Amino acid sequence: MNLVYIVMGLALVQFLFFGYAVGAARGRYGIKAPATTGNEQFERYFRVQMNTLELLVVLIPALPMFAWFISARWAAALGALYIVGRGFYYVGYTRDPAKRSFGFLLSSLPVFALLLGGIGGAIAAFFRS
Amino acid sequence: MNLVYIVMGLALVQFLFFGYAVGAARGRYGIKAPATTGNEQFERYFRVQMNTLELLVVLIPALPMFAWFISARWAAALGALYIVGRGFYYVGYTRDPAKRSFGFLLSSLPVFALLLGGIGGAIAAFFRS
Amino acid sequence: MNLVYIVMGLALVQFLFFGYAVGAARGRYGIKAPATTGNEQFERYFRVQMNTLELLVVLIPALPMFAWFISARWAAALGALYIVGRGFYYVGYTRDPAKRSFGFLLSSLPVFALLLGGIGGAIAAFFRS
Repeated sequence: MNLVYIVMGLALVQFLFFGYAVGAARGRYGIKAPATTGNEQFERYFRVQMNTLELLVVLIPALPMFAWFISARWAAALGALYIVGRGFYYVGYTRDPAKRSFGFLLSSLPVFALLLGGIGGAIAAFFRS
Repeated sequence: MNLVYIVMGLALVQFLFFGYAVGAARGRYGIKAPATTGNEQFERYFRVQMNTLELLVVLIPALPMFAWFISARWAAALGALYIVGRGFYYVGYTRDPAKRSFGFLLSSLPVFALLLGGIGGAIAAFFRS
Repeated sequence: MNLVYIVMGLALVQFLFFGYAVGAARGRYGIKAPATTGNEQFERYFRVQMNTLELLVVLIPALPMFAWFISARWAAALGALYIVGRGFYYVGYTRDPAKRSFGFLLSSLPVFALLLGGIGGAIAAFFRS
C-alpha cells in the first residue's frame, strides 16, 4: 500500500510541474494574469494542466479504491503507467495538439481501469458483507 | 462503507461522461484544441464539466468524512442525490444556461450538507478525544 | 488526526466561498454563463477559484499522507498556514494581480512541504516494510 502512496505523490509532483510550465509559458509568451488566452502556444501548456487536473480528480480516489478492493501492486503499476502516459501527453500536446492522442490514451486508460476495477471491487464487497 | 465507495465511483463515472461530452462537442461545433471558446453551445458543455470538477473536489473528501464521523448510509444517500442533481444540471445547462439553477441546487446542497456534517463530526470527535 | 480533517474541511469551505465570489462577480460585472471572460475584474475572481482548485487537488491527498507518515500536528499546522495564505492570495489578486505573489507563496509552500514530506515518509515506510 505504501507503494500506492508513492505513485500518487509522484503523479501530484508531475501535476505541479505542469503548473510550473504554465507559469513559465506566461512569461515566455507575454500572457499576463488573469488572461489565459491570446497565444496558442501558451494555451497548449494551460490545457495540459487543466486536462491533467480533470483526470487527476478521478485518479486520486480511484487509486486507493482499486488498491483496497482489488490489488495494491496493480494499482501502483497502473498509476505508474498513467504518469508515463501524461509525460507523453505533455510532450505531444505542447509540440502539436493533433499529436496528443497517444499520451491521452496511455494516461486515461489506466485511470478508467482503476475506476471500473475499484467500483467492481466495492460492489463485490457490498454483496459479500 | 462499501456503498459510499460505490456512490463515489459512480459520481466519477458521471464526471468522465461530462468530459466525453465536451470532446464530442469539440467535434460537433468545430472547436479545435487548445481553444475552449468560440461557440456558445460548446462552452455550455465545457462549463458543465468545469463546474462539476469544482464541486467534485469538495464531494470526494466530504463523502468519506461524513461517512466516518456521522453516518455511512446518509453519506451514500446524499451522494446519490448529488449524482441525480448533476444529471439535471447537465440537461438544464446544455439546453439553456438560465435553467441550470434547479440541478445546481439539487447537486450542491448535498455537497454542502456532507461537508458541514463532516466538519461538525470531526470537531465533535476532536473534543471527545 | 481529527484536527487534520477539520483543517481539510475548512480549506474546502474557503474554496466554496471563492466559488460563491465568482458567482457574485458574474452578477456585478454582467458576465452571463457560460462566458468566463470579458471583464478583467471578473476574471480575477475566476482565476482565484481555478488556481485554488489546482492547489487543492494536491493538498487534499497530501494532508492525510503527511499526517499518516510524518506527523498529524504538523500536517494540521501546515494546512492552517495554507488557508491563511489563500486568504491573502484572494485579497491580493482581486485588488491587483501583480500583488498575488505573497499569498501565492504562503499557500503553495505549505502544500509543497506536505507533498514532499508525504512522499518521503511513504518511501521510508516502503523500505522499512
